[in-house]
Amino acid sequence: MIYFDNAATSFPKPVEVYDQVLRCMENYAANPGRSSHDMAIEASAKIMDTRQELSELFNIPNMFNIVFTSNATESLNIGIKGILKPGDHVISTVIEHNSVLRPLNYLSEKGITFTLLPVDENGYLNINNLKNEIRRNTKVIIVNHTSNVLGTVQDIRAIGELAKKSGIIFMVDASQSAGVISIDVSQDNIDLLAFPGHKGLYGPQGTGGLYIREGLEVYSFKQGGTGSESFSMKQPDFLPDRFESGTLNTPGIAGLCAGIRFIRKIGIENIRKHEIMLVEYLVKELSKLPYVKIYGGTDYKNRGAVVSLNLDNIDSSEVGELLNKKGIAVRTGFHCAPLIHEIIGTNRKGTVRISPGYFNNLEDIEKLIEALKDIGEKKSL
Amino acid sequence: MIYFDNAATSFPKPVEVYDQVLRCMENYAANPGRSSHDMAIEASAKIMDTRQELSELFNIPNMFNIVFTSNATESLNIGIKGILKPGDHVISTVIEHNSVLRPLNYLSEKGITFTLLPVDENGYLNINNLKNEIRRNTKVIIVNHTSNVLGTVQDIRAIGELAKKSGIIFMVDASQSAGVISIDVSQDNIDLLAFPGHKGLYGPQGTGGLYIREGLEVYSFKQGGTGSESFSMKQPDFLPDRFESGTLNTPGIAGLCAGIRFIRKIGIENIRKHEIMLVEYLVKELSKLPYVKIYGGTDYKNRGAVVSLNLDNIDSSEVGELLNKKGIAVRTGFHCAPLIHEIIGTNRKGTVRISPGYFNNLEDIEKLIEALKDIGEKKSL
Repeated sequence: MIYFDNAATSFPKPVEVYDQVLRCMENYAANPGRSSHDMAIEASAKIMDTRQELSELFNIPNMFNIVFTSNATESLNIGIKGILKPGDHVISTVIEHNSVLRPLNYLSEKGITFTLLPVDENGYLNINNLKNEIRRNTKVIIVNHTSNVLGTVQDIRAIGELAKKSGIIFMVDASQSAGVISIDVSQDNIDLLAFPGHKGLYGPQGTGGLYIREGLEVYSFKQGGTGSESFSMKQPDFLPDRFESGTLNTPGIAGLCAGIRFIRKIGIENIRKHEIMLVEYLVKELSKLPYVKIYGGTDYKNRGAVVSLNLDNIDSSEVGELLNKKGIAVRTGFHCAPLIHEIIGTNRKGTVRISPGYFNNLEDIEKLIEALKDIGEKKSL
Repeated sequence: MIYFDNAATSFPKPVEVYDQVLRCMENYAANPGRSSHDMAIEASAKIMDTRQELSELFNIPNMFNIVFTSNATESLNIGIKGILKPGDHVISTVIEHNSVLRPLNYLSEKGITFTLLPVDENGYLNINNLKNEIRRNTKVIIVNHTSNVLGTVQDIRAIGELAKKSGIIFMVDASQSAGVISIDVSQDNIDLLAFPGHKGLYGPQGTGGLYIREGLEVYSFKQGGTGSESFSMKQPDFLPDRFESGTLNTPGIAGLCAGIRFIRKIGIENIRKHEIMLVEYLVKELSKLPYVKIYGGTDYKNRGAVVSLNLDNIDSSEVGELLNKKGIAVRTGFHCAPLIHEIIGTNRKGTVRISPGYFNNLEDIEKLIEALKDIGEKKSL
C-alpha cells in the first residue's frame, strides 16, 4: 500500500524504531523508576536518553521539564486543564484540532471563556487580530503550529513574542510539526509544547509528551504511583513525577528515542525539504486538472506536508474508497478539525487529505496523480 | 537475570506478544478509527479483537463498555474522578495502592470525603467493618482485588453483593489480579474494573483498560479527537469514544491481544496454579530460616503471587542490591502502597518483594532461596 496518511500517524517508521522496541521488550522492559535491579535501571536509563534527545531537539534547558504522555491529546488536556481556572480567558483559533477545541468547549461549562480567532482561506491567523483579542483576564494563547487540514504553518515566533510581551502563557500544539519543523522553546517563547511521539518523531503509537516551562504552575492531572515519595498519599509536586503516574510505555519510549536519533541522522531540514518537494510537485501537477480543487496556500516555506483537496462531483469519502482500491491510503472527511471547514467551504463534504512523509518518493506521488486523474476524469465525463 | 518483579510489570512476555507488536508496527500500524483505508481498517479490527478478548475474559456483556487506557492508574483516575461529586463519600482500604490513595487524597480538597477501612495483618478487610462504614452519601466502594504488597486477595464477590444491595457503585482495582484470578464483572457485581495490560495480561507497557457498566454515568476525563462526530466540538457521549480521545496505542493493544490469547491457551487456572505452587514452596522453605520475616497469610486460595519479606538486621534496599548482584531482580521499599506498612510494621524499612510469574520455575526459586540464605546467614552471624 502507498501510505499518504502520515498526518494521522507516520508509517513506516525507521527500522531502528522497530528494532529498539523489540530489543527493549525482549531484554529490559522492567518498570522504570520503580525498582533498583539492573533491568529497571536500564529501563530508566532509556527513558532518560529519550528525554535528553527531546530536550536537544526542542532546545529545552532542563530535560526533566518534559513529561511523557500517551499522545498529544493527553498532553494538551494536561496543559490546558492544568493552567486554567474559572474566570480565565483563552485565545485560540478556528483551525485548531478537536484535541484543543473539545477541552475548551468542556471548560466553557466551568466558567472559562475562549475566543477563537478567524483565519484566512489558507489558514493563517492575523497577529493584529490576536493582539486585539487580548483581555485583562487572558491567561493563555493556544496555537496549532501546523494545520492537519491545510498544512498552514503559523508564525509561532511572532506569537510567542507577543505572548511574552503581554505576560500571557503561550501553548503550542506541535502535533503536525514536531520532528519536521524546527521548534526552539526558548527562542519561540513557548511555555507549553504538546507533541505526539508517533507522527513526525517516528515513535510508535502510545507515545507523546508535554514540555512545561520551568516555574510554570500546572495542576496535576492524574495522581498515582510514581516510584517517588512512595510513603506519601500526596502526589509529588516536582517534574516530571507530578504528571507521570503509573507505568510508562518503556518500549514505546525506546522506539521514540530511536525515531528522534533517526531525525538527527538525516537532519530535520532534509526531512522537511524532501516532504515539501513532494507536496510542491503534487500541488503543481494537480493544479493543472480542472476538476481538482486544492485548499491551502502555496507559500511552501510556511506550509507542512498536508494537502487537502476535492474532486468535482464526487464525495471525499468516495475518492478515498476508490484510492484505497488502487492501493493508496489517504484520509477523508473532517480530520477532527470541525471549524476550518466552514472557512474553506467543505463543511458538507470534508476533504481528501494527502499527507506524504519522508518515506514517500516521487514515484508514489506520480501513482497518486494517475489515480486521481483516473477517478476525476471518469466522474467529470 | 532471574526476574521476580512481575507485580511491577510482567517479564518476559509470551513470544506471541513480541511477534504481534512487531507485525502490527511493520504492517498495519495506521490510525485506527480515523481513516477508511485498508491499513486503518486492519488496525481498527485488531483493537476490536482485543476488546472482544477482554470482554470474554471478564464476562463483559458489551465489548464497547471497555475503554483502552495507558495503564491502570489512568483507568482508576478516569473511574474515580468520573463518578464523584462534592459531597460524596468513598469507602476504600488502607491496603490500596497510591493509584487509588492519591486520587482520593486529591479529591478530598474538592469536597469529597473518604473512609479507609483497616485490614488485618495479612491484609484482609472485614466485611462487617465495611457494612458499618456505609453512609447515606457513600457513592462508591473501591477495593484492591489483590495486594501488591502482601498478595492478599479480597472477597470481591461478597463485597460486590453488599455494594449492590446497598445501591453503591463497586469499583475494583485489578492491577495484580487481571489475567491471574478469574474476574466476572456480572457475577461479582462490578461497576468499574480498572486493569493494566502489562502485568498479568502479558501486554506491553503502555496498555490498560477500564470496564464501565452499561448505564453508569461517568464524566469524560480527556477530550479530543475520536474519529467520530468530527464536525462537533462536543465530546461524543457514547462508549468507548467518550474516553478514547487521541491515537490509541495500536501496537501495544495488538500485543495485549496476543497476551490474552496466551492466557486462554494455557488456562487462567493453570497460570494461577503454577504461580501459587512457586509461592507456596518459597514461603515454606523461607519459613525454616529464623532470620527471615515473611508478611501476609498462608491461605493460598486467597493469595496472589506476591511475597513480602525482610531479613533481620539488614535494610530491604540492601537485600535488593545484593540479590541484584547475584542476578536476581526483586523490588524493595514501599511499593507505592504507603498505609499498609504501618500495619505490618515496615513503615521504616519497607519490604523485599518477590513476585514470581508464569515464566519462573522451581529452579529460579531455589536460586533465590540460596541467595537469601547466603545474604541472611552472613548478616546474622
